[in-house]
Amino acid sequence: MAKPYVIGIDLGGTNTAFGVVDKEGKVIASTSIKTQAYPDLNDYMKALSDAMKKLAKDSVGLDKINGIGVGAPNGNFYTGNIEHAANLPWKGIVPFSRMLSEKMGLPVSLTNDANAAAVGEATYGAARNMKDFIMITLGTGVGSGIYVGGKLVYGADGNAGELGHVIVRRNGRQCGCGNKGCLECYTSATGIVRTAREFLLNDTQTPTMLREISEKEITGLYLTECARKGDKMCLDIFNYTGTILGEALADFVKFSSPEAIILFGGLAKAGTLLSIPTEKAMNDNLMPVFKNKVKLLFSELSGADAAILGASALAWEL
Amino acid sequence: MAKPYVIGIDLGGTNTAFGVVDKEGKVIASTSIKTQAYPDLNDYMKALSDAMKKLAKDSVGLDKINGIGVGAPNGNFYTGNIEHAANLPWKGIVPFSRMLSEKMGLPVSLTNDANAAAVGEATYGAARNMKDFIMITLGTGVGSGIYVGGKLVYGADGNAGELGHVIVRRNGRQCGCGNKGCLECYTSATGIVRTAREFLLNDTQTPTMLREISEKEITGLYLTECARKGDKMCLDIFNYTGTILGEALADFVKFSSPEAIILFGGLAKAGTLLSIPTEKAMNDNLMPVFKNKVKLLFSELSGADAAILGASALAWEL
Repeated sequence: MAKPYVIGIDLGGTNTAFGVVDKEGKVIASTSIKTQAYPDLNDYMKALSDAMKKLAKDSVGLDKINGIGVGAPNGNFYTGNIEHAANLPWKGIVPFSRMLSEKMGLPVSLTNDANAAAVGEATYGAARNMKDFIMITLGTGVGSGIYVGGKLVYGADGNAGELGHVIVRRNGRQCGCGNKGCLECYTSATGIVRTAREFLLNDTQTPTMLREISEKEITGLYLTECARKGDKMCLDIFNYTGTILGEALADFVKFSSPEAIILFGGLAKAGTLLSIPTEKAMNDNLMPVFKNKVKLLFSELSGADAAILGASALAWEL
Repeated sequence: MAKPYVIGIDLGGTNTAFGVVDKEGKVIASTSIKTQAYPDLNDYMKALSDAMKKLAKDSVGLDKINGIGVGAPNGNFYTGNIEHAANLPWKGIVPFSRMLSEKMGLPVSLTNDANAAAVGEATYGAARNMKDFIMITLGTGVGSGIYVGGKLVYGADGNAGELGHVIVRRNGRQCGCGNKGCLECYTSATGIVRTAREFLLNDTQTPTMLREISEKEITGLYLTECARKGDKMCLDIFNYTGTILGEALADFVKFSSPEAIILFGGLAKAGTLLSIPTEKAMNDNLMPVFKNKVKLLFSELSGADAAILGASALAWEL
């Protein structure tokens, strides 16, 4: 019988946010520490476990905690290690689960952030009762978590679900992964800004609010605002982005034939600006057996707590 | 306790081949009937079940048969139906499993041919002991069967694993599925012949054995023979084909991170002519976390019996 609470940790390059979560997916208490303040991993582990013990003690009591789930960049579920994460202060392979488990006296389950989001969605969100779905996270990068037959797909080595690096434009934009034309280069929050710069470069005539600010200030949020006000170039940028995303989603459907695809993360806040062209392009690129069958949904996990909730969901299976 | 034998049926547009198979994957006895000779489904079912009962009786006895597995075009595992198969004489939705089970008094499991090949490979072939692998069938079309965590991926509706229709060249060659640029248009036995015709059209200078026969006579087998004799254009055609296949495989790796990808079907007989450029392109398009890790293998199921073996493997789980 599982204990009634879990802890979820959202480990990011800047902050480590964590919270105590109940079975309905409610965050009972949460706080954070600065990841960057601890270049020494041992110092970080001490600060994290001290803060976590205090949080648990002040809320529900440490003895009521079933376990700890961690969503971390390059987190490997099989090993519990964080492997060569570019944006974290600790280099190489970090045995995160083992170290934290020893400090806390609790079992720890770890995976990458996009997988954690998918587990959260399956446990508390839009994918409750779904066995087959794909979560696409549209943030600074593009990540994914894939459910097949009721289980998260980890693959032979724990590295499955890197759909942000599927190549959507052969010899396209340079990606940080070393390849060119990855989905992430077009449909992440940074990708859409690259698109905006290209549009501005290629069309100096069409009036647009994008020329009212400096290019460096353009963000996904600003593009969304301008598009909502009817700015034609911004609408075109969302159509372009959604079309590429939809084309990619069609290929993913041919792989695992999911019941739904769920969009999550910063750029998903653009709502129908993004989802309408995405859904059209997806169905345009599907054969009859798949066409107009796959639901395109938005995450139901609330913004601020979503990453903590996702990570926490891992800990119910411990 | 499963009975010691199963029957596998390879249902094709021309012939229906079937055989009695033991636990080691040996075909004890086999025969076939002409699919096209029975435009009426009821006549076909009677002929098939009569022939099957005779085959079982004359070999191991019907009471030793655990069940029947069927690999059929557009076969749906969940429903046991064959759905709108273009190359079969019976139109619409055919409740194949139910009808055959009633005739035979045995449980029947059905899936599409590529999935059956994957189950066969997992049961008797190159994927024994593998939990995560992808089978790619390179025949008249391109099909796939995907294993994740030790189970075949069927998806929400039983239609998963249509990797032959992943789009590899946006606005590329017209595919029978209605879309353009599908993998199948380039890396099937018919796709490589289309490539040969394009090469001949675009280059009328380079000496090649392809000009020694009429264009209509070009086959995958002839291309293989000429390439093995060192014909430059044929070698270039295999490099082109393998490169496209490898680029697609790289994207599949990012989805499910398999231990191996297994090539099966007519064009796989080209061996290293195909696999060397395929493997190079696959690894060129993978990030460090995946590069040079995924095995590219050929099916170990022997040619003539492979489809029967694959289908038969489904019946062990009945």
